Amino acid sequence: MRVELMTDILGDNDAAARENKQLFDAHGVLAVDFMGSPGSGKTSLLEQVVRSLDDVTVKVIEGDVATANDARRIEEAGAEAFQINTGGMCHLNAPMIARAAGKIDLAATDLLLIENVGNLICPAAFKLGAHFRLIVASVPEGADKPEKYPVAFRDCDGVILNKIDLLPHVAFDVEGFWDLCGQLQSQAMKFSTSCVTGEGIAQLCQWLRQQHLQLTGG
Amino acid sequence: MRVELMTDILGDNDAAARENKQLFDAHGVLAVDFMGSPGSGKTSLLEQVVRSLDDVTVKVIEGDVATANDARRIEEAGAEAFQINTGGMCHLNAPMIARAAGKIDLAATDLLLIENVGNLICPAAFKLGAHFRLIVASVPEGADKPEKYPVAFRDCDGVILNKIDLLPHVAFDVEGFWDLCGQLQSQAMKFSTSCVTGEGIAQLCQWLRQQHLQLTGG
Repeated sequence: MRVELMTDILGDNDAAARENKQLFDAHGVLAVDFMGSPGSGKTSLLEQVVRSLDDVTVKVIEGDVATANDARRIEEAGAEAFQINTGGMCHLNAPMIARAAGKIDLAATDLLLIENVGNLICPAAFKLGAHFRLIVASVPEGADKPEKYPVAFRDCDGVILNKIDLLPHVAFDVEGFWDLCGQLQSQAMKFSTSCVTGEGIAQLCQWLRQQHLQLTGG
Repeated sequence: MRVELMTDILGDNDAAARENKQLFDAHGVLAVDFMGSPGSGKTSLLEQVVRSLDDVTVKVIEGDVATANDARRIEEAGAEAFQINTGGMCHLNAPMIARAAGKIDLAATDLLLIENVGNLICPAAFKLGAHFRLIVASVPEGADKPEKYPVAFRDCDGVILNKIDLLPHVAFDVEGFWDLCGQLQSQAMKFSTSCVTGEGIAQLCQWLRQQHLQLTGG
């Protein structure tokens, strides 16, 4: 019974996700879902992207269990931000995104960046209708995370290894990490970033720009 | 309807947790639930505790979505380990612990350390029957985590700030972190640890020893 119930929930969610994607497509909005552990640096990364991408209009949906702190940080970085508080729920879902999208002027949006709730498990099961799903993993979490949280690293379009400025200070097997990622999802894009030194941010921004151009036939 | 269903699940879980606690009490076993984000260092901390506590018999239940890697690490550190793979579920629950406890020789156990699934949200809602619930937070996750994941930091008996060896390399407001913790749960024990330098491990072990003595009237 519980399996059936879960299938219903995921089926309903997938249907809503497809509608979200159609809506984004219709407006030429590239939507990207950023997932990762608490403290992997998702908000810092989005702040950097918002600051760097001054040639396209970026809007951000912030998903959190509590507080609007992250939306405030994004607004300070210069993008319009829409906070979703899940009230205890450990992931965003497609209906939440549909409701938030209803408040966003999509005609005046190029990129819609979605920061999911800090959690490496459940967000992976709930598609939001984004064109791309990126996992943000950070160096101090350790290189074994893809193996231990395989669904997230398998059902994604790219992995961002963040906080690479900490590589000199922690034991982290970079090659081993990317090997594990490749075993789970050989097609995933790979980025290495630091929000302290700024390394890798330009590559991530360039990729986002290209995906938007491709979506809009530019 | 969904709220009622959730209440039923949590009510059933709480009942099973109470039975677990009675079982542990009857055998003089101190049970401690370690919760925290992926990569906060829970397994490394338990390895250190297992190596340090050579005067009491420690056993460990390892909760993971996938792999038995952590149980292997604990066995190598010298304690008997029991792996629970949740098969995608984002937290342990009391019935899982009851099943695992059935395989453990509790009469020959002083401390039962339980490493929950790496997740700062859902484990907080599911009591396991442990005498104490400790949150492992790590320095690179950032000092804002108590505010953003309030349930875990409120419904706990102690907070372990781990990876303090990284304090010189990241921006982390130690005082601000403990202030936020205190606002949510003023009674919580406070520990600061590093599994690299070994700092703070002795204090944590001493506290565990004392709690076990108190439980067994020693």
